[in-house]
Amino acid sequence: MSTGPDVERYLHEHIPISRALGVTVIRADAGGVVLRAPLAPNINHRSTVFGGSAISVAILAAWTLVHLWTRDLHRLGRYRVVIHRSAMDYLAPVQGDFSAICTPPSDALERFTGTLERHRRARVDLTARVTTGDRDVGSFAGSYVAIRLADGEDV
Amino acid sequence: MSTGPDVERYLHEHIPISRALGVTVIRADAGGVVLRAPLAPNINHRSTVFGGSAISVAILAAWTLVHLWTRDLHRLGRYRVVIHRSAMDYLAPVQGDFSAICTPPSDALERFTGTLERHRRARVDLTARVTTGDRDVGSFAGSYVAIRLADGEDV
Repeated sequence: MSTGPDVERYLHEHIPISRALGVTVIRADAGGVVLRAPLAPNINHRSTVFGGSAISVAILAAWTLVHLWTRDLHRLGRYRVVIHRSAMDYLAPVQGDFSAICTPPSDALERFTGTLERHRRARVDLTARVTTGDRDVGSFAGSYVAIRLADGEDV
Repeated sequence: MSTGPDVERYLHEHIPISRALGVTVIRADAGGVVLRAPLAPNINHRSTVFGGSAISVAILAAWTLVHLWTRDLHRLGRYRVVIHRSAMDYLAPVQGDFSAICTPPSDALERFTGTLERHRRARVDLTARVTTGDRDVGSFAGSYVAIRLADGEDV
């Protein structure tokens, strides 16, 4: 079981741009991931959040969820998690610190686990909300694929 | 007319995460924008490019093109350029320095200009290729909207 600070350390160490984005982990467990980032390092020419930063934090939130799911499935093997597609609708300018909130559909983990009990790989489609204060400012969708590694194969 | 170094200075100053991404401007004129970024600051847990970095550089390339178009239309007024949607298909892991190449459809600038001669705002849909060496590794699509500013209104 990982805690928020463990996950934050993992992200900052292994995906160093997450540190430049100022990402902090608010929640990270199999039921959902919430990441937060400040405006300052992500500011654009209009003093709002750069669209690339907003989608990057959402990509990380959904990736972290799948990463945690595969770690909990270590009885089946080790997995590589790769992104196949990412998309974001920008609903409003982001004028302050923002969060990416990835909450999986209620049956997603069960279906993901079931697929990996029968196959070497499983695809999962996730969404995330990007919010600032109590306002939705972005709608993210991402497709990820978990691939079981061969013995000795590196992540 | 802007030169590559002017545009690079503008991006690094006004969208500072572009500096953290290591973005350099290879080409920036009304006919196309090419941005490059190194692997090192954008590396992930698999020693390939983080998906958020790849789409961020593509978002910047397409945004820069629309930004240059609106600057050339200063006879009509000043414009704000905002992103409405971004999407990326990840075709292969990016194992080295990479480029985002945004080349507009042949009639896009003419249609964009025509719309802004008649209306206060114009939408433009652009694509970009993300490449490493001579290989396509990502396919980007983005929708941007240019909005004419009222007198005295800030970008």
